[in-house]
Order: sequence, then structure tokens, then C-alpha cells
Amino acid sequence: MSDSDESEPGNSTTATASTTPTTAETACFEAGIKFGTLYHQFAGTPVSPDSAPSLAHAMEASIENQPHCVDVTVDVRTDELESELAASAADYTELTGRFLEVEIVVDYEGHEVVTQMAMEDGYPLMKVVSVSGRNAGD
Amino acid sequence: MSDSDESEPGNSTTATASTTPTTAETACFEAGIKFGTLYHQFAGTPVSPDSAPSLAHAMEASIENQPHCVDVTVDVRTDELESELAASAADYTELTGRFLEVEIVVDYEGHEVVTQMAMEDGYPLMKVVSVSGRNAGD
Amino acid sequence: MSDSDESEPGNSTTATASTTPTTAETACFEAGIKFGTLYHQFAGTPVSPDSAPSLAHAMEASIENQPHCVDVTVDVRTDELESELAASAADYTELTGRFLEVEIVVDYEGHEVVTQMAMEDGYPLMKVVSVSGRNAGD
Amino acid sequence: MSDSDESEPGNSTTATASTTPTTAETACFEAGIKFGTLYHQFAGTPVSPDSAPSLAHAMEASIENQPHCVDVTVDVRTDELESELAASAADYTELTGRFLEVEIVVDYEGHEVVTQMAMEDGYPLMKVVSVSGRNAGD
Repeated sequence: MSDSDESEPGNSTTATASTTPTTAETACFEAGIKFGTLYHQFAGTPVSPDSAPSLAHAMEASIENQPHCVDVTVDVRTDELESELAASAADYTELTGRFLEVEIVVDYEGHEVVTQMAMEDGYPLMKVVSVSGRNAGD
Repeated sequence: MSDSDESEPGNSTTATASTTPTTAETACFEAGIKFGTLYHQFAGTPVSPDSAPSLAHAMEASIENQPHCVDVTVDVRTDELESELAASAADYTELTGRFLEVEIVVDYEGHEVVTQMAMEDGYPLMKVVSVSGRNAGD
Repeated sequence: MSDSDESEPGNSTTATASTTPTTAETACFEAGIKFGTLYHQFAGTPVSPDSAPSLAHAMEASIENQPHCVDVTVDVRTDELESELAASAADYTELTGRFLEVEIVVDYEGHEVVTQMAMEDGYPLMKVVSVSGRNAGD
Repeated sequence: MSDSDESEPGNSTTATASTTPTTAETACFEAGIKFGTLYHQFAGTPVSPDSAPSLAHAMEASIENQPHCVDVTVDVRTDELESELAASAADYTELTGRFLEVEIVVDYEGHEVVTQMAMEDGYPLMKVVSVSGRNAGD
């Protein structure tokens, strides 16, 4: 269970010195929590092409329960899964990052943060795509 | 990923001395693996009455991937979940044993093992309900 | 496995319109990933007062492997653990947030983010304590 | 949390028809639970050669909390871990079966079950090594 308390945005005239998180920064922290949760709750789950859709759906619905989480989209890369299984004697494997493409959208105090995970240079890379809702007051 | 190698059933005339697992014992070991997997892969997952059905379905489908596992039935005790949330400021909680009733059926080398988990005296109790397929030769 | 790519800080003159994450925002996202990972990797682990120190140490060392993570401190609230077990027939329980106090420090591109988790109003609350390294250019 | 209730051993004169689990079968079920727990609680944990010993120790101590579990030995195959990291741009990876050798000993109602996991044909294989304590009455 995770949540975050209200944070006062740093005032722009004192931003240099302040270490108080801005609302946008807290929104990004919240988005990171969701990504770490999704990955480490479900990594290691036995998965096959047949069971992948139900797992993806459960991952979406469970993470959407978390505070400030407005949308989660999980795509299992079935081609990658089938390719691994074709080279194997097994008919299932363990869920890990290279089988996943994920988008998580958080809305925290009017700031929408869009984040994604996809493979880059052989690693599952989680990144912030956009942060909206910032303005002069934040 | 888990599996078990072929095991020679202990011969009945030497069963007293032998420590070789019987086929029925290996079948029960396999059933235990599935229960430990199901519980510890999914414990801690954010869950609400709305997301519970998709989670239950994913748990069934993922564990059924494992070797020798022929049927998994997961019932989320929605009444218990709703009761906990009614007493709480949150609208979701973490999956744990008291929200679950589970039956797992394993068939290993002709031995069907039926196992269940349900609450007993305040604890989620996993137990073997029945082992079939034993005969004089095992 | 998680990481984040380089992000160009939003220029202050265009901050109103830009949705590009600032370096400080990405640093907070990274900190959130570590918290979600720590919580959902280890929630559900069997734990007792005797085994708690080794678990706390392993949690620290494993999360410190993650990119940009400079320090993790996990305190298991042994008093709370002992209190729960005293009221129980069991001599161990499952790790969950109310048994934990955690501090995670991330340093991303010169921005240090200090984050904590502790109980507040009956829930484990994860929050950003401070973000340093911001300046006029960020 | 897992446990198992008392089970009456099948009487030898009716063993052919009975589906009641023997004490030895229940002992094997208990051993399987510990293996599934160990694997799926910790698979996915960030691990490096430096953090591996603390993780191995925590895995041993946490699983030994479970009922009837008398000894758990976890060896991280550091050579395999170093070999994977040498071929990688990262300095840590996720714990999975090929980095592990595990022995778990359960004692249930006088029946000692020794179980192991090691790589075989490219897969982590969990198996029952021995079951002792059986006698004519079981």
C-alpha cells in the first residue's frame, strides 16, 4: 500500500534553496512507485501465450487500485514469448521485463504524469514521458 | 520454474528401509510447490472487490502452466474483503490468505492429488485432501 | 531491472508549456521505482523477530543494486512484530508495511532525493522528504 | 503462511482404496510448499555478486520460519552470476533459478524429507531426494 502526503510546491522565488518537493516531483515519485510495484509484484509469474492476456489484465486492474493511478496498459509481447518458448523444451516461462510493454498514467494534484517501460539496448527501461499541469505557481 | 524427475516408487517389501520417494509422495511434493508459488507470487498484490475477479483468473491461469497441474480454482472471499475495506479509509488492500479459498489439483504419473487452502482458526491452512492412484505396486 | 534515460530539464522560460520532465522530476520517479520494488518484492516474506535483521539487510543490499540508488536503510519494527505474534498462535508472520520503516536515497544527475516510508494514520505512507540539486537552470 | 493439519496415515490393509494422504505424503506436500515459497518470494530480486550472500542468508532464515522446516541451505552460483554480468552492460541482474542451488529439509510428524533444486538440462529442477521415517504402519 503506498500513498504520499500533500506537498507544498516550492515557490519559484526560493526554488534555488528549497528542497521541498514540488507537486510535479511528488507526482513523478508516485508514478515510480506504481512501476516498481507492477514489475516486482509480477516478475517471476509463470506465463505462456495462453495465460498472458489474463495476467496482463490482472496487472492493469491491480495497479489501477493504487492512489492517483488513472490508467495502466500492459501489453505482453507474445512474439518474444513464443520465440523464447520455441527454443525451449518448456511450454511456459517466467514473466520478466523483455516480455512487457507498459504505460502507466498518474494524476496527482492536477499533474498528469505519463510513464512507459519498453526494451532499449536489451534492457527494460522505465521512463517519464511527460509531466503536465506545471505552471508559474509550481 | 519447477518440475520433478522420475522417481522409482519404493517397493513395498523394502518400504521400511527405503528412503526413495514413492510416486504418490512426489505427486504431493509437486502439489505443494504449486501452493507455495500461488501464495507467494501473488501475496501483496493490490486488490479491491472490483479487481478481485481478474486477479483470481490470472492466478488460476498462471499456476495451471506449471508441470503436472491440471486444475486451479481461486475464489476471492469478497465478503471478507468488503468487510475489511468498510472498516478502513482505503478502497483497496493487499492480497493475503484470509481473502482466498483455493483448490489445486495435480496429476503426476497417474496419481491425482487434490489440495486446498482455507481459513482455519484464523490462519490460512493448506492441506492435502486426497491422493488417488496408489496401488499395491506403489 | 529499471533505469531511466537522460532527460533534458525543462527550460524555465518555457516551463508552463513544456511537458518534458525535469531532471529533478526524473530523480523522483527513480526514487519511487525503488520504493515500489522494495515493498512488493519483499511483502509476504515469512518473518520473525529472529529472522528480521537478515531480511532487513538483504532488502538494503538488493535495492542498492538499482541504478542511481545510493543508500537504503530498512528498520524492522520489532516491537510491532512481537506485539502481533504475542496475540497469535504462530511464531512468524508475513512482512507488510506496518513492520517497516524505510529510507531510500537516490542521486540522479546531481539531484539527491531523500524518501521515506513510515506508518501514518494506520497506513504505510511513502513520501519524498527532500530534493536537492535544483537550481535556476532546472 | 502455510501449515497442514494432522493427517491419519492410510492403513496398510486398505491402502489400495484409500485416498487419505499418508503422513509421508503430507510431509512431501509441506516440503513442496517451502520450495514454491522460496522461489516465488525471491525470484526477481535485484542481485549482484556483492549482495548475493546477504540475500542467500535472508532466504534461508525466512523460509526456516515456516512450519516443520528444519533447515534451508541456499547457495548462489556466483560463477554463473559473474558470467552473466560479464556479458552485460549492467552490474546486477534479477534472481532466477539458474543462479541458485537450494536444499530444504522438512520434518513432519517424524518423517524427514530432503529436497533439492539444481539446474538440470537447462532448467531449475526441484526434487525429493529422500523420505525417512516411513514404516509398516504408514
